[in-house]
Amino acid sequence: TLFTAGFSLFSTSKSSIDTSSFMAEPISSVEYLAKNKDDMKIKVELMILRVQAEFCKALEKEEESGAKFVVDKWQRKEGGGGITCIMQDGKVFEKAGVNISVISGMLPPAAIARMRSQGKKLSDGELPFFAAGVSSVIHPKNPLIPTIHFNYRYFEVRDGDTVHWWFGGGTDLTPYYLNVADAVHFHTVLKDTLDKHDKQYYPKFKKWCDEYFYIPHRYETRGVGGIFFDDLDTPSQESCFKFVTDCADAVKYSYIPLVQRHKHATYSKQEREWQLLRRGRYVEFNLIYDRGTKFGLLTPGARYESILMSLPLKARWEYMHQPGKDTPEGELLEVLKNPREWVKE
Amino acid sequence: TLFTAGFSLFSTSKSSIDTSSFMAEPISSVEYLAKNKDDMKIKVELMILRVQAEFCKALEKEEESGAKFVVDKWQRKEGGGGITCIMQDGKVFEKAGVNISVISGMLPPAAIARMRSQGKKLSDGELPFFAAGVSSVIHPKNPLIPTIHFNYRYFEVRDGDTVHWWFGGGTDLTPYYLNVADAVHFHTVLKDTLDKHDKQYYPKFKKWCDEYFYIPHRYETRGVGGIFFDDLDTPSQESCFKFVTDCADAVKYSYIPLVQRHKHATYSKQEREWQLLRRGRYVEFNLIYDRGTKFGLLTPGARYESILMSLPLKARWEYMHQPGKDTPEGELLEVLKNPREWVKE
Repeated sequence: TLFTAGFSLFSTSKSSIDTSSFMAEPISSVEYLAKNKDDMKIKVELMILRVQAEFCKALEKEEESGAKFVVDKWQRKEGGGGITCIMQDGKVFEKAGVNISVISGMLPPAAIARMRSQGKKLSDGELPFFAAGVSSVIHPKNPLIPTIHFNYRYFEVRDGDTVHWWFGGGTDLTPYYLNVADAVHFHTVLKDTLDKHDKQYYPKFKKWCDEYFYIPHRYETRGVGGIFFDDLDTPSQESCFKFVTDCADAVKYSYIPLVQRHKHATYSKQEREWQLLRRGRYVEFNLIYDRGTKFGLLTPGARYESILMSLPLKARWEYMHQPGKDTPEGELLEVLKNPREWVKE
Repeated sequence: TLFTAGFSLFSTSKSSIDTSSFMAEPISSVEYLAKNKDDMKIKVELMILRVQAEFCKALEKEEESGAKFVVDKWQRKEGGGGITCIMQDGKVFEKAGVNISVISGMLPPAAIARMRSQGKKLSDGELPFFAAGVSSVIHPKNPLIPTIHFNYRYFEVRDGDTVHWWFGGGTDLTPYYLNVADAVHFHTVLKDTLDKHDKQYYPKFKKWCDEYFYIPHRYETRGVGGIFFDDLDTPSQESCFKFVTDCADAVKYSYIPLVQRHKHATYSKQEREWQLLRRGRYVEFNLIYDRGTKFGLLTPGARYESILMSLPLKARWEYMHQPGKDTPEGELLEVLKNPREWVKE
């Protein structure tokens, strides 16, 4: 038994955490990761490191200019840090950002009050928290390829002896031109992934997504939706982790085929300008309504460059731009004003 | 005396309101305006109609493509309406908007609660209100011409027998390259205008402007400032009206010379791209922090096209764009991070 223990110590502290495939060294030290492999915080950190690297590599494979992701590892003075990967001004991808962050510190009273108002049973005052997540927005150059956004995150708040934890996240698609086959493919991958865990998830999280990505002042959704959920803490921590991992792993299957389908398609100046106008709407949603962006920017010591990487390279605002009803642009607007069911039961 | 009364009736109801120089017919009927000429609501409506027309004409005179302002008169179903004037894609002006609105209706309890938290003594529940103002943002094409914004407004809330009223407004300049002579000219016109009313106004309202147009997440101001004030209700309603009228009339003297100075200057692709990046910051301020935009978009029945006319035609976001300290771009950033006094006592 002495021999076994020694071997086990060796294997977890040295050889079992292979960081060579990640975009950068983990935020936590490899020793700490190896020692605490069963802690959910560590499992999530390792999962998002892997998902980030796999998605970046899948995108690099589609980019045709030879451009690669630039990797910025950053630290937060208040605790934790992150890895921001950006590809800009490529031939296929105009601006692609894949960010992970692993943050800890004290939650200010205002943030706790907000969580309480959303139903969390937490004490007054400051509480220690942990948050880790992967978040990405991909803006391709070709207006026939949709923009995708996804974000998967894990949250812990310690209140006395109790650790409150939950998962949240989502994946959603923002096309510039309606392509029903694309939307059906995208939603089918999501539904298939969710159905394996709970048959009620897809209808529930699809609706939540349509409601979340709504631009009230324009009376339209940001795109053709996808899935969105928050405060997920049932049936068990392990099953939630597996679910979120599956969702994050599904992103590439939902999106890369759409890039491959359209990246060589020709497009007109008019299609490009429409894309830039729609990117203006994307900016409006992210800066006015998106909770992640808003609370991110209000967090002291926030790394605004990583938060605002979601904004497109270029955007455009024209007064009273109103495409005709029977144009391809009008057809998209029609769907944004009346969200559809893309996959049948 | 009968004759005099008859003459006076004739003169106010018919010939005394000349609407021919306005961009469109007034929001209130000419009969109503003529009958209530001494009511502050009417005086403000007539003033903003005149200021809008004069400023639009001064800009049209500088535009060299022959483009003219397009005039949209709109009505708000809940009460009142406005006139939005837009010039887009000109040779000198890339996007210029001059908007007036004259609105009345019921203030929702949330808006009243907000006013109370800002020190207004108002009862609970809904209260009838009136708001009229002129608001403008001019984005020239040439990066050597600054963007200007101004807004002057009058507000009334009726609470039982008491009418609470106040004025607010400001004018501020957002250059893309620092030109000290421009900033000094601009601030000198403002200071001279304010000094005629109260020697304490310029220092106080200049500081208020620097504080208001601050982008906290970037640790920089939007531009080189100007003046900003709110809740102005002393020494008298008439003197406040004269003050705000003078401020609004000063806009053209502060700004048009800068257009004339730089509109024929050549500029490089790099200067144009820097301008678009700075326009991205303008969008960030307006959509995240500007109270007018925010509350405007949250108002039921808001005319979002008129509110969002402040956004530039084009904007750009680059990850981690950081100009060198000794570049002209870095010189501007330095001033945005450390607001200066442009005019000596």
